[in-house]
Amino acid sequence: MKAEIISIGTELLLGHIINTNAAYLSGKFAALGIDLYYQTTVGDNPERLTQAIKRALIRSDIVILTGGLGPTIDDITMESISLLTGKPLIPNRAVAKDIARYFKSRGLRPSRGNEKQSRVPEGARCLRNKFGTAPALIIEYLGKVVICLPGPPREMEPLFEDEVARYLNEKFRSESVIVTRTIKTVGLAESQVNAIVKDLLKLPPPTTVGIYAKLREVHLVIMAKAKSPRRARLAIAIIEKKILTRLKSHVFGYDDDTLESAVGEILKAKRLTLSVAESCTGGLITKRLTDISGSSKFFMTGIVTYSDESKENFLGVPDALIKKHGVVSRQVCKEMALGIKHFACTDIGIGITGIAGPAGGSARKPVGLVYIALATDRKRIVREFRFKGSRQDIRWQASQAALDMIRLNA
Amino acid sequence: MKAEIISIGTELLLGHIINTNAAYLSGKFAALGIDLYYQTTVGDNPERLTQAIKRALIRSDIVILTGGLGPTIDDITMESISLLTGKPLIPNRAVAKDIARYFKSRGLRPSRGNEKQSRVPEGARCLRNKFGTAPALIIEYLGKVVICLPGPPREMEPLFEDEVARYLNEKFRSESVIVTRTIKTVGLAESQVNAIVKDLLKLPPPTTVGIYAKLREVHLVIMAKAKSPRRARLAIAIIEKKILTRLKSHVFGYDDDTLESAVGEILKAKRLTLSVAESCTGGLITKRLTDISGSSKFFMTGIVTYSDESKENFLGVPDALIKKHGVVSRQVCKEMALGIKHFACTDIGIGITGIAGPAGGSARKPVGLVYIALATDRKRIVREFRFKGSRQDIRWQASQAALDMIRLNA
Repeated sequence: MKAEIISIGTELLLGHIINTNAAYLSGKFAALGIDLYYQTTVGDNPERLTQAIKRALIRSDIVILTGGLGPTIDDITMESISLLTGKPLIPNRAVAKDIARYFKSRGLRPSRGNEKQSRVPEGARCLRNKFGTAPALIIEYLGKVVICLPGPPREMEPLFEDEVARYLNEKFRSESVIVTRTIKTVGLAESQVNAIVKDLLKLPPPTTVGIYAKLREVHLVIMAKAKSPRRARLAIAIIEKKILTRLKSHVFGYDDDTLESAVGEILKAKRLTLSVAESCTGGLITKRLTDISGSSKFFMTGIVTYSDESKENFLGVPDALIKKHGVVSRQVCKEMALGIKHFACTDIGIGITGIAGPAGGSARKPVGLVYIALATDRKRIVREFRFKGSRQDIRWQASQAALDMIRLNA
Repeated sequence: MKAEIISIGTELLLGHIINTNAAYLSGKFAALGIDLYYQTTVGDNPERLTQAIKRALIRSDIVILTGGLGPTIDDITMESISLLTGKPLIPNRAVAKDIARYFKSRGLRPSRGNEKQSRVPEGARCLRNKFGTAPALIIEYLGKVVICLPGPPREMEPLFEDEVARYLNEKFRSESVIVTRTIKTVGLAESQVNAIVKDLLKLPPPTTVGIYAKLREVHLVIMAKAKSPRRARLAIAIIEKKILTRLKSHVFGYDDDTLESAVGEILKAKRLTLSVAESCTGGLITKRLTDISGSSKFFMTGIVTYSDESKENFLGVPDALIKKHGVVSRQVCKEMALGIKHFACTDIGIGITGIAGPAGGSARKPVGLVYIALATDRKRIVREFRFKGSRQDIRWQASQAALDMIRLNA
């Protein structure tokens, strides 16, 4: 069973919006065990759209289209499908009713274009769009399936969840499923992870391993195709064990885990509290940790001290120390960690100071120089890092390194 | 002149990552006045990739590929191009040197795979990738141009800016240019902006206006096609003036401006200093403001007080007040703003408290309830908001509302 996605919209080709629908739908198809080999984006041009649908119908069994279903004359998806399948557009009473209800509930009146939206190819199965006026439908044609969904994610996603997923599941109950398992590591470069698991990356289907590098994070994705989810998971477990044995404590989590959620789990399990004093990372670590719902269980205080006075007022870092060693120094960093730990009354205190750039660097203290300190009742650790990249990159890498220090020392 | 984009990577087809490169490159081509009709995504499969490149070379003059240039055996872009153009892969000394330098500066040793990265199709023009080891190159072939760039945006974008844009500009100087101007507004819903500029949204080419809604931000994009950049800008200026007259202070910036950069500019111009005490937004406002290089000129202290004690210890919010009104209340919010203003010694203090969810809501204080307070020497403003959406959505909207309060009251 093969599927492909066609995203329709000139705004995509002009770069005005990012195509999140393709990633969303691709993830869904992978979970359904349906192979997806192509994503195509075309504009609101009848000829090119018709060509794209035709090509997709030749090489795939399921073609899912998003966008081009709006009320304006630009929106030509229905016309193209009607042309291609030879099924005339006819008014659909249920769709028309839904549109009328949609406008009534908002105290608005439908426009002429909305009448156009209620005309769908003959024989199409219409889906109920609760969040907009664009029609959504499934057309079966010569053993293939064409699915049209609206472009806005807030309309498209519920339609897929509520109706399309069930339809696909029933219609194409596949003899095989695809299960993926992502193993996430930190502290090693892609080339280092690559060298450690090289043999596994060459495994032939049905169980394969892929490697994906992020900033200061490397992911290994095990993908297994099997007759049942249980068998796929068994095949994955064997490879997973090998990877864990080799990468040991560099593995911080799986699948939807993030470095911050992994840190949060550890702190919650050990009933430890944390506070963070940041300078160059500007609240990034605090933001990442508090992105987690329930973070108030372990996260107490985060402070971003940009000015020297605030380092003294809020953290008790002596002005003399700053004058002697500079704000970006091992000594000040350590005092920041001790200060926040003390004033916030937490088990762990983290201090970070550095130069995120692009300005502010010098020969002795270049852009990318970052100190990270961790203080607990028993430990006092200060580490020096030299990160490369843009301001954003440096800040991100510093937050990764700090979270990893907490993970390994909590 | 026609261009198209091919994005390469199984992780895109599995929905593991969102394709932001396609949007970025599409925007750049539009700015260069080069038509772009297709975006295609394929996996790391030699046959399908070769097919996709072949088809692109037939229908377009410029084919730009991103991804599939890594050090691992999955990465097959170079092989496919070599196969298709009949140009053998040969080691490139300059690329090899750059890779060696890249590793040396990081205290790492290149792997075998990195040697593979230095082999490029004969006759290719190599571009210098300062942020990674993946090769980047331009190949001219039978009057067409193939451009290969690495997949990670932090490597791809500088390469495009520094080298590819100039190359395309020189090679394909077009008779017409497209200039776009984005006007960014805050504080109005899409339907409200739509109603105000309805007539302009219907303007026919060559000068058109599009509307794009973000979370608590609406953008209007004016696009003009003309014989010269000057003429295009003139056409834009006329429409822009109309929009400004109608949307007034809701306009906070243009093009690459962000709400935080707009706020930063105002504070710098007025020589005002700012500190922020956040609760439900968990450092998001602080992070956004300190994302700006040079923010240390106006941003002094940011504090995230998750625990009641930290609200008392760091901000002086009386425990009795919290007990009486609750943490999420008008009264506590105001004290947070006054407290941070006082202790950080700044001109403006901001306090935020609310319920970001998904847990923690009640009938009287539902998820999405957020208070934002602003304190200056003369003003004390507290506003109540009720945001909808996910935890992330609520936090983002709260940060937007807070930044807008600073913008309008500084």
